[in-house]
Amino acid sequence: MEIAILLFDRYTALDVVGPYEVFRCLPEVNVRLVGKQRGLVRNDANSLSIQADFQLSEVTEPNVLVIPGGPGQEAIMGDSGTLNWIRRLNDVTQWTTSVCTGSLILAAAGLLKGRKATTHWLAMERLARMGVEAVNQRVVVDGKYVTGAGVSAGIDMAISLAAILATPAQAQGIELALEYDPQPPFRAGSPDKGPPNLVQRMRVQTRHNQ
Amino acid sequence: MEIAILLFDRYTALDVVGPYEVFRCLPEVNVRLVGKQRGLVRNDANSLSIQADFQLSEVTEPNVLVIPGGPGQEAIMGDSGTLNWIRRLNDVTQWTTSVCTGSLILAAAGLLKGRKATTHWLAMERLARMGVEAVNQRVVVDGKYVTGAGVSAGIDMAISLAAILATPAQAQGIELALEYDPQPPFRAGSPDKGPPNLVQRMRVQTRHNQ
Repeated sequence: MEIAILLFDRYTALDVVGPYEVFRCLPEVNVRLVGKQRGLVRNDANSLSIQADFQLSEVTEPNVLVIPGGPGQEAIMGDSGTLNWIRRLNDVTQWTTSVCTGSLILAAAGLLKGRKATTHWLAMERLARMGVEAVNQRVVVDGKYVTGAGVSAGIDMAISLAAILATPAQAQGIELALEYDPQPPFRAGSPDKGPPNLVQRMRVQTRHNQ
Repeated sequence: MEIAILLFDRYTALDVVGPYEVFRCLPEVNVRLVGKQRGLVRNDANSLSIQADFQLSEVTEPNVLVIPGGPGQEAIMGDSGTLNWIRRLNDVTQWTTSVCTGSLILAAAGLLKGRKATTHWLAMERLARMGVEAVNQRVVVDGKYVTGAGVSAGIDMAISLAAILATPAQAQGIELALEYDPQPPFRAGSPDKGPPNLVQRMRVQTRHNQ
């Protein structure tokens, strides 16, 4: 089994490494980090680089494609080379997935038209404007498209998919191995749980930046 | 504020990137990935490399030190150069922290003697044998030592500390930004919740490997 994770300049690191850590626990799996070129790819905070061990042309038939999010998604949404690669891979994948604003990239590639999908809560309206049925849910499965909500949701997305790629028992084993028994210090991780004034401020800021 | 995260051969990627992603959201922070030498450092599955932007000698006075876990911890526990660096930094840090089996490294450096600390559930007995009061808790704070349980607990550990380093409101903002509203697909992420036969099998395997 081959799982390809796209790296692009200014990805969000946890969008990449959450699913990576889950998938790499699957039996007989190759998880491949793929960039436009081989080499270091810098994250959105400009303080962490992950190595792309493969370049786009080297990865042609993965079983699963993972598209992370991050501010660098803006450039990728207008990059026909990468979008064509995503479309070509999508023709052969069993599952095409995203984390956070990675679903905006899938939408830009034309893969989510009329489908249910999710994204970071601050990008939901934008996803809807792209002709996607934006669903406020941690993980959304529609056909072979599996999308996760913001950043940390990549872990939940990947465990959900691991249960299908392997077995539910193996996915439980992964939860145990990663000790995924989360206890968020605050109950503020979604817009309906976070402090309303903070949620509002972040919404305004995002609209301002778009 | 400077936060140093140690990279060593065969670290667990999520041990590193969980806290990284939380801490890098703090205001006016430099998060530095530090290796024995500058350059790529390969993870435990040999399929992901993070760049060490700094070498040990370049990082001398961080406010916070983060030691991740992973099978490579065995080598580090016997590596006097790295242990001495940890001890020297610990003399000046405000907080010395670990994720997963990173606490075994802190113990090997002699920093946790008689203190309360936690680790991956499969390493609890071993931590106790090193003269540490091993506590079965997601995040343990004893003095300036903050230790997290296995792998994914690094996120909870870092958010707890972010609330102190900054303010609780800012830590809530980080939970919102990372959409940290986890929904584990199974409730199997700790030994008291996972399937007993699976927990037992993993315990036996670990004893066999030690």
